[in-house]
Amino acid sequence: VRRAAVHRFTLPDPGDVSSLSASIANGAVDPHSIVAVIGKTHGNGLVNDYTRGYLAQSLAFLIGGTTGVPPDTVRKRVPFIFSGGVEGVLSPHYTVFTVSKCESAGPSKGLAIGVAFTPDLRPEDIGRQRQIELTADAVRQAIATAMIADVADVHFVQVKGPAFSQTDIVASLGRGATVATDNPGKLMAYGRAASALGVGKALGEIPAEKAVADAVLRDFSLYSSVASVSAGVEVGCNEVVVIGLSKDWGGDLTIGHAPMADALDLSAIHPMLRALGFSDGHQLAVGESGRIKAGFVKCEAARDGLIRNRPHTMLNDGDIDQQRHIRGAVGAIVASILGDTALFVSGGAEHQGPDGGGLVSLIVERSGEA
Amino acid sequence: VRRAAVHRFTLPDPGDVSSLSASIANGAVDPHSIVAVIGKTHGNGLVNDYTRGYLAQSLAFLIGGTTGVPPDTVRKRVPFIFSGGVEGVLSPHYTVFTVSKCESAGPSKGLAIGVAFTPDLRPEDIGRQRQIELTADAVRQAIATAMIADVADVHFVQVKGPAFSQTDIVASLGRGATVATDNPGKLMAYGRAASALGVGKALGEIPAEKAVADAVLRDFSLYSSVASVSAGVEVGCNEVVVIGLSKDWGGDLTIGHAPMADALDLSAIHPMLRALGFSDGHQLAVGESGRIKAGFVKCEAARDGLIRNRPHTMLNDGDIDQQRHIRGAVGAIVASILGDTALFVSGGAEHQGPDGGGLVSLIVERSGEA
Amino acid sequence: VRRAAVHRFTLPDPGDVSSLSASIANGAVDPHSIVAVIGKTHGNGLVNDYTRGYLAQSLAFLIGGTTGVPPDTVRKRVPFIFSGGVEGVLSPHYTVFTVSKCESAGPSKGLAIGVAFTPDLRPEDIGRQRQIELTADAVRQAIATAMIADVADVHFVQVKGPAFSQTDIVASLGRGATVATDNPGKLMAYGRAASALGVGKALGEIPAEKAVADAVLRDFSLYSSVASVSAGVEVGCNEVVVIGLSKDWGGDLTIGHAPMADALDLSAIHPMLRALGFSDGHQLAVGESGRIKAGFVKCEAARDGLIRNRPHTMLNDGDIDQQRHIRGAVGAIVASILGDTALFVSGGAEHQGPDGGGLVSLIVERSGEA
Amino acid sequence: VRRAAVHRFTLPDPGDVSSLSASIANGAVDPHSIVAVIGKTHGNGLVNDYTRGYLAQSLAFLIGGTTGVPPDTVRKRVPFIFSGGVEGVLSPHYTVFTVSKCESAGPSKGLAIGVAFTPDLRPEDIGRQRQIELTADAVRQAIATAMIADVADVHFVQVKGPAFSQTDIVASLGRGATVATDNPGKLMAYGRAASALGVGKALGEIPAEKAVADAVLRDFSLYSSVASVSAGVEVGCNEVVVIGLSKDWGGDLTIGHAPMADALDLSAIHPMLRALGFSDGHQLAVGESGRIKAGFVKCEAARDGLIRNRPHTMLNDGDIDQQRHIRGAVGAIVASILGDTALFVSGGAEHQGPDGGGLVSLIVERSGEA
Repeated sequence: VRRAAVHRFTLPDPGDVSSLSASIANGAVDPHSIVAVIGKTHGNGLVNDYTRGYLAQSLAFLIGGTTGVPPDTVRKRVPFIFSGGVEGVLSPHYTVFTVSKCESAGPSKGLAIGVAFTPDLRPEDIGRQRQIELTADAVRQAIATAMIADVADVHFVQVKGPAFSQTDIVASLGRGATVATDNPGKLMAYGRAASALGVGKALGEIPAEKAVADAVLRDFSLYSSVASVSAGVEVGCNEVVVIGLSKDWGGDLTIGHAPMADALDLSAIHPMLRALGFSDGHQLAVGESGRIKAGFVKCEAARDGLIRNRPHTMLNDGDIDQQRHIRGAVGAIVASILGDTALFVSGGAEHQGPDGGGLVSLIVERSGEA
Repeated sequence: VRRAAVHRFTLPDPGDVSSLSASIANGAVDPHSIVAVIGKTHGNGLVNDYTRGYLAQSLAFLIGGTTGVPPDTVRKRVPFIFSGGVEGVLSPHYTVFTVSKCESAGPSKGLAIGVAFTPDLRPEDIGRQRQIELTADAVRQAIATAMIADVADVHFVQVKGPAFSQTDIVASLGRGATVATDNPGKLMAYGRAASALGVGKALGEIPAEKAVADAVLRDFSLYSSVASVSAGVEVGCNEVVVIGLSKDWGGDLTIGHAPMADALDLSAIHPMLRALGFSDGHQLAVGESGRIKAGFVKCEAARDGLIRNRPHTMLNDGDIDQQRHIRGAVGAIVASILGDTALFVSGGAEHQGPDGGGLVSLIVERSGEA
Repeated sequence: VRRAAVHRFTLPDPGDVSSLSASIANGAVDPHSIVAVIGKTHGNGLVNDYTRGYLAQSLAFLIGGTTGVPPDTVRKRVPFIFSGGVEGVLSPHYTVFTVSKCESAGPSKGLAIGVAFTPDLRPEDIGRQRQIELTADAVRQAIATAMIADVADVHFVQVKGPAFSQTDIVASLGRGATVATDNPGKLMAYGRAASALGVGKALGEIPAEKAVADAVLRDFSLYSSVASVSAGVEVGCNEVVVIGLSKDWGGDLTIGHAPMADALDLSAIHPMLRALGFSDGHQLAVGESGRIKAGFVKCEAARDGLIRNRPHTMLNDGDIDQQRHIRGAVGAIVASILGDTALFVSGGAEHQGPDGGGLVSLIVERSGEA
Repeated sequence: VRRAAVHRFTLPDPGDVSSLSASIANGAVDPHSIVAVIGKTHGNGLVNDYTRGYLAQSLAFLIGGTTGVPPDTVRKRVPFIFSGGVEGVLSPHYTVFTVSKCESAGPSKGLAIGVAFTPDLRPEDIGRQRQIELTADAVRQAIATAMIADVADVHFVQVKGPAFSQTDIVASLGRGATVATDNPGKLMAYGRAASALGVGKALGEIPAEKAVADAVLRDFSLYSSVASVSAGVEVGCNEVVVIGLSKDWGGDLTIGHAPMADALDLSAIHPMLRALGFSDGHQLAVGESGRIKAGFVKCEAARDGLIRNRPHTMLNDGDIDQQRHIRGAVGAIVASILGDTALFVSGGAEHQGPDGGGLVSLIVERSGEA
């Protein structure tokens, strides 16, 4: 029987992983047991965000140095999934997932985690059927690794896929390939969308015959309620982390999730908190807030330009990208309820949660009653 | 006996005041009765935000054209107080305040409004004692105009003061004047701060001997809980709008306010809603949300770089100004509770509410029970 | 015989047209004689740039007030063509074109100007054949008005077409229309591109059979060397200003133009200056610089990501739009040669000058020898 | 006798130092011979620019891995001086300086280089006398190391000093220290300014009695014509690189420099090019352009808001930092003359070159005649 642990560290600078280093030094974290790292870095979360790659490099050298595994090999084995953009109240951090053996499972299902990687993807694969299929395959593989018996027990699937610069795209076109778009930022959206369809297909949320390239960024009625996809120039393939519950895992952690119908959908968050055993209230009390081990949010600026029938301006803004706007807004809303600002909040929720909304997922220490 | 009415209009573009124009045309708004307009426009809310001046010009021509008063005179009589920046979920809008006669006051105190103007201010006046005193004088005058008998009945004081461009500042220096800072954005902060001290002095929130230039941007223990100050290049003096309650006013509107201790201070907002007669709940139901006539929020990025002991990055950001970050965050939090995104959310809360926090004020239709 | 005059004014603020007002007051400019205004304003030049509309409103009220023509009628008669974005060394300004009668033409052709308007365009017209054809028609009409006998004498065609916000686009889609793209910023590019093809078609620079919707943003070998197109939310149709030379016009002004092969193409600028009678030198001497009446530049970030075989990063940037980058760069280059920063520099040079480059056009006082 | 070599590499991504890696692998660069690296990275060049630290980490691991020196020791020995911000046409790159032995000096003085480090600096040292003195000491030490006999032979002094985040500043204040300003971006300016005064003092450009803390950011008549100072969070002390000419060095490289009186000062650049043996012309021909080994530019937005008597808007801009504007503008001007966009262009030229201007320095292959 295995046991997953979740260690959340503050990130003063993408080059400063001293918190994890200290935890390795004092034995709190065994670097060999690290299976994934998910983090929120200081950059803009767009094509030219290098803070994701910087943190990945920092961690690869730290983990490599403390395990004897070459840094490049670390990066091939351990998904480093970072989203840039700590707008507003959000706080830069990274969450380290470890897996160890434990004596026996508890009476409840335990937190289960599995990871997988697709083969490398090229610009011409992004937003296309190949990305959908490879992602679905990787999700299935990660579920198997996590020994999650029922897809209903999957509560969060984080995918990080590649982004490409203008130079990369031009190179693809020069090879005679066609790409979904020659706009680097837009290509990130295609990649997130196709990957989300792949997750939804693997989990049965989206019928196989509808999880097709033609639906990418077109049929927004199709979505996964647990998929969270980011893109960045620092990865070459789709890295997949599946988190859920399984009777084959022990420990005192559990996880819940909820789709958000729009940016203001508090009615999604509070029932999830109740289901996870938190007492009722507008904001978690300081004591209860400490049960939170990690929080994940996906959100987007409603494509019809309206929130509750009032216009928003996020999609017309040439100064601040829409993703930065919506992350700052929805991140603050969730933080205000949890009393915790170290959340993984990611914009670009194409096919990830309901259109115009998104999703939220929380890993928490099990309470007495939940 | 007088009666104040509050008309909130969506603003598709700072040059498009067709909503008010239609209301004037159909008799819903008598343009002669307009005493103030407070609005949230599309710009960045910083020195180079011209959307505030654009809306002011649009309104001056509309009101001038429908009343026969020259537009320049309209601008001298009617405070146009606009704050730029509709980050995140916020929606551009403007709220028109009108005053008319009414037969008799009701059993409760009615919504009361008064306006006043300081003399013109120059760059060298900003952040200085002269601005503090002139603002305090104008607040007292506006309270008198509003026939508010008790300063405890003042629930919101909106001030709009001048901002100056680099060229203006250089001209002042060329005249031999000294200015508080030669940084145009920082000078806006000085102006907000000194004006807030003036409001606090007039209301007795800040002892007269402490409301001095030396305390400006220094002693953040001094603050007003009802002052909301903006600055912009489109005004030449401090324009003051005082809103409160008075037995000499009729109508079915009321107002409340609450200081916010930090950006996540939900404990300030919900009790205020209860006091205003809203039923308990995480978010106002659609029906109740309709009682909201106008909402005002002041907020700021905590100067110590921390929110609930976790670092935020707003003060280190060279891409997005701290005010844009915090407006988007706190605006979203308040909007999520009210279910209403057309809020006046203004950053730069120096001496406006507790340090690191701010304040919220709501004008609502009186409920049966409140 | 007619005479065109060119008056360039500094613009301290889009609401401050006091320079033109003073010139009208002192008789230097007859407001009835104004046929077009081209200007560079303070905004970002993207969808949410309201400084263009603000200046248009300011001028419409000034010209309306001094001529007795209603401001709305002024805007229908006089093209107000403003481009936002004074990046780097550039200086906000507006150039007023007037036409008056004169006794007789001189020995050389005189500066000639003609304006025309297309019918209003909807989101679904942008980037489509209808926009190409209507623009070509308007250009022909403006050439006729300008009495320019030979299209080789056309040296500058400025077009300002409509931009649409997300709300407008959603409304079009709701009517069942299809639009070239649902991205507001990208739709501006489609509009510039189709309009440029229309100019090229009217002038014979692009064969009629190639000036088709399929070529828009696709076949970049097609371009006009004199077309400069901007888009903005403040106009509803394509407004066209044609400037060239004609024996039917008098006065001492002349005009030249040159295509720029890339952003660093000094070899285009210097020969044009020589042809206009400026003496050789790296930078115009202060005395000669005074001969410049107006300068127009179109430029773009090379789509292949390279300038002289070195990568640029403009197309990957999520913080600063590519147009802001390239305007600041090419504007500075041209300003450094002319010793003049009050230039109309506009980004987004799709089909306007060679791919990856752009064009420059100068109106100057005729020298003794040119 | 020593010989300095200069290797300039393109930087596709701050984590991609494969060009240098390949040169080490093929023997073109001996990693033990590297004495300094100066580079231009993808970030914004402000406090939250992590691309500088990312490149530093990448290089430290590469050089450490190929020399056997621990990466942290590499960083203590080799100044890594990176400036963020490749606005407009600029191209990310890094220039590696190596020193090797050579048989004999040539008939001309050879390119000489020396490096030195101050002790670590804290927030309270920035902009203060301690920073001035320590920098002056380090410059003298680097000159000695470089065996430059005459300060007139110093043509470029690059300094990289520490920047501090809000958290760092708050920590200093918490220790009871006073800091020059609590604004992180402004503190970078103080650091650049004090360091430049230190350089000027060491070189005799600024009298010792005037190189005092009171003059920092106040007396802009004081400046060094060869000092170029950057600040960044990735360094802890002032790192100093002095480049000049010395009879004790061989090789075929030389260096020149020129102060720029304002942003458009072409009259500074062209004479420097002539002195370095380039033929006259508006732009270097492709053949001659190849002689350029590295170019360094310092520039700033004129504090009086004017360039050649026309207003610029850089200091009023809340969307794009003034440094990004001016780097894009002056970088483009210099690039257009050199036909080379891989230039080190750095904003914030406080006391570095004439007020409102800056400086340019070029390392080139000696021509036959120079």
